[in-house]
Amino acid sequence: MRILILGGDGYLGWPTAMYLSRRQHAVAVLDNFAKRRWEMELNVEPLIPIRTLHDRVDAWEKVSGERIELFVGDLRNYGVVEGVLEAFRPDTIVHYGEQPSAPYSMIDHNRAVFTQTNNVTGTLNALWAIRKVVPECHLVKLGTMGEYGTPNIDIEEGFIEIEHKGRKDVLPFPCQPGSFYHLSKVHDSHNIRFACKVWKLAATDLHQGVVYGIETDETQLDSRLETSFHYDEVFGTALNRFTVQAAAGIPLTVYGRGGQSRGFLNIRDTLRCVELVILNPAKAGEYRVFNQFTETFTVAQLAALVVQQARKLGMAAEIEHVENPRIELEQHHYQPAHTKLMALGLEPHYLSNVLLESMLGRVTRFQARIKRDIIQPRVRWDTRGREVEELKRMWAGA
Amino acid sequence: MRILILGGDGYLGWPTAMYLSRRQHAVAVLDNFAKRRWEMELNVEPLIPIRTLHDRVDAWEKVSGERIELFVGDLRNYGVVEGVLEAFRPDTIVHYGEQPSAPYSMIDHNRAVFTQTNNVTGTLNALWAIRKVVPECHLVKLGTMGEYGTPNIDIEEGFIEIEHKGRKDVLPFPCQPGSFYHLSKVHDSHNIRFACKVWKLAATDLHQGVVYGIETDETQLDSRLETSFHYDEVFGTALNRFTVQAAAGIPLTVYGRGGQSRGFLNIRDTLRCVELVILNPAKAGEYRVFNQFTETFTVAQLAALVVQQARKLGMAAEIEHVENPRIELEQHHYQPAHTKLMALGLEPHYLSNVLLESMLGRVTRFQARIKRDIIQPRVRWDTRGREVEELKRMWAGA
Repeated sequence: MRILILGGDGYLGWPTAMYLSRRQHAVAVLDNFAKRRWEMELNVEPLIPIRTLHDRVDAWEKVSGERIELFVGDLRNYGVVEGVLEAFRPDTIVHYGEQPSAPYSMIDHNRAVFTQTNNVTGTLNALWAIRKVVPECHLVKLGTMGEYGTPNIDIEEGFIEIEHKGRKDVLPFPCQPGSFYHLSKVHDSHNIRFACKVWKLAATDLHQGVVYGIETDETQLDSRLETSFHYDEVFGTALNRFTVQAAAGIPLTVYGRGGQSRGFLNIRDTLRCVELVILNPAKAGEYRVFNQFTETFTVAQLAALVVQQARKLGMAAEIEHVENPRIELEQHHYQPAHTKLMALGLEPHYLSNVLLESMLGRVTRFQARIKRDIIQPRVRWDTRGREVEELKRMWAGA
Repeated sequence: MRILILGGDGYLGWPTAMYLSRRQHAVAVLDNFAKRRWEMELNVEPLIPIRTLHDRVDAWEKVSGERIELFVGDLRNYGVVEGVLEAFRPDTIVHYGEQPSAPYSMIDHNRAVFTQTNNVTGTLNALWAIRKVVPECHLVKLGTMGEYGTPNIDIEEGFIEIEHKGRKDVLPFPCQPGSFYHLSKVHDSHNIRFACKVWKLAATDLHQGVVYGIETDETQLDSRLETSFHYDEVFGTALNRFTVQAAAGIPLTVYGRGGQSRGFLNIRDTLRCVELVILNPAKAGEYRVFNQFTETFTVAQLAALVVQQARKLGMAAEIEHVENPRIELEQHHYQPAHTKLMALGLEPHYLSNVLLESMLGRVTRFQARIKRDIIQPRVRWDTRGREVEELKRMWAGA
C-alpha cells in the first residue's frame, strides 16, 4: 500500500513511517519542521539527540534497505498538499501533521490563533486535495481523547444514541475540549465528518489517549533512528515527564489533586493501531471514530507507579502536588469505550514494571542532558490579568 | 451602554447600530468592508443601492442627531481588535463580523479555508482582547440554527440533558452543520464556551434562523440609511430571494422537494432580540445559547406564500423545483426550541401577507436593477470531480 505520513518528523510520525516501511508498504513523509522551530522558540529539546529527517531517512535506507520518500512543505499551503498527493498518489494518508501541545496553545493569543489556523487549515487542505486528486484515499487522522472532555456519562466512540422526548437519533458525541489545541482537534473532526458526507471521502478519526514510551522495534535498530522524546511542560506528556523527573532526582509534579483520569497507551500500540486501521479502512462516505488507548489511570496513580519503580532502582523519587495550571476537574467520572481497535486485533502492551524500568534506565543514560527548568508548569490556563512582564520572563529563558 | 458592533456595514450590523443608537446607547461600528469585496469577486450587488459606511454614519447623525463611532479594520489583526477595545471600551460587543454565506464557503478550497480561518480567527482575537482589555464585557455572538443541522430529535437551546447507561449530564447539543460556513460557526461556539469557562467571560451565542425583510424603522427614515439587501444565490436568503424572483417574473427556485424546514425571523425581530440580550446580559463565566427565530416553515411553504401574495398583486409568479445543489435532507423532523427570547419579552413580527405585500412592493420599485443570472444556484456541495473550466465559467461572469 502507498502510505503518506503527514508530520513524519514527529514523535509518532517518524516511528510510524519506519514501522510501515518495514512491513513492505511504500511510505512517504511530509513535514515542514515546524516542531523544531517551536522547540527553538521555547528553548526546549528532545532528551535524546535526534538527526535531521533527511539523515534519518538515509540511515533507515542503510539499516533496512527500504527507502522512505521525503517531502518538505507546509500543509497550510494548498499547492504543496495537492502537489504531494499528485506526486505520490497515496492509498492512505496518516495525518499527524498538527501543533500537538495544549500548553503551547494556551501561552498567548498568537499561539492560540496559530494552533487553530494551522491545524484546521492543514486538515481542510488535505480534505480538498484528497477530494480532487485521490478521492478513494483513506484518511487516518490523529485526534485526541481530549476532544470529549470529562462528561458525567460514559464516553462512546465518536457517536452516541440519544433518546429525547420520545424520539431517537445517533449523533456526534458532545465535545467539551479543554484547551485551544484540543478545540482545534474538535474543529477538525467536524470538518472531516462533513467532507465524508458531502464528498464520500473515507476517514478514520483516532481519538488517541496520552502516549508514553521512547522506543519501538525500529528506533532500537540504530541510534540514528531515535525519535523525538519530550519531557518539558509544553511538549512532554505525563508519564514521559515523570520518568525524567525521577531520573533527574527532582519531585514528580502532579497537577492539583491528581485525580484527573486519562486514557494512556504505549507508543508501540500507536503504531499497531494505525496499521490495523490502514489494513481495515473506512468505506467511501464513512467517517469512523476509534478511541485509541489501552488503559486509564489517574495522574496520581501514574506518578505513584513511577515513584515505586524508581525507588526499586535506587532513585530517591517523590511526588509533589503543584497548583494545577489548567482548568479541569480533578475528580470525575471516566469510563470511555475502547473496543473497536481491540475488535480489529489490537493486543495491548500494558504499562508494566518492566517497561517503566526500561524507560527509567534509558532516560538515566541521558541524565546529563536534562534541563530541569523546563519541566515545572508555567503556562497557566487562567491567563486573565497575566502581565506582559511575566510572559517575557517565561519565554526569554529567565 | 457602550456597544461595539463588529461587522457594522452588513445587512444586520448597520440596522442594529442605528436601532441601538436611537435608544440612547453609545454605539461604535467596526468593519473592514470585506463583504463589499466578496460582492465584487462574484459580481453581485445589493438590490437597493447603499452608501459607504462613512456616508451612512454621517447621514445617521444628520437624521437622528446621534453620532455612531466608526472604526475601520480587520478582526483577523489582533492589534486592531485590542486597539479598538482600548479606544472604545465597550460594555457589550455584538459580533456580526464574519463571512456569512454557506454557498460562498463551498465554492472552492480557497474560500472554504478563508471562511473558517477568517471567522475563527476574528472570534478568537475578540475573546483574547476582551479578556485583556474589557473582561467584564458581554459578548453577543451571532451563530446560526444551522449549527444543529437536522437531527431526528427535538433541538434544544445549546445544551441537552443526556441520560446514558444510568448516568446523566447536561452537555452541548451535538452539532451537524451543513457547510464549511456553518462549521465555522460551530468552531466559534466551542471556542467561546471554552473562553467563558477558563477566563470567566460572559457570552450569549444567538443561534439565529434565516432573516428576511428589507426595512426597519430606522432604515425607513432616509434613503441614505438603507441596508444591504441581497437576492443572489450566494448572499441572498430564501424568502428575500423569492420576493425578487416574483418581482422579476422568473420562477421561484425551490431546491429539491422543498421539504427542508428552517427557522425564520423578521429583520426587525433580530434587532429586538439583540437588544433584549444586551439588556439582560450573561453573567461572568456564563455561556448561553438562545435560538433566535420566531417561526418555522418549509422552503416550499415559503415559496407558496410568496406566490400566493404575488399573484394577488397581479404578478405571474410560479414555483420551479430545481436540482438541490446542497447535500441536505429534504424531508425531516424539525422541532427546535425557542422559548428563551420569548421569555425575555420578544413579541414577534410573524410573517404576514401585509409584510409580503410590502416587500414585494419595495422590491418591484427596484426591478430594473435585478440581475437575473445571479439567482440560479450554481455552487454545488458535491464538488467532487468539478472541473477547473466549470469554476472559471462560474466566477468570471459567464
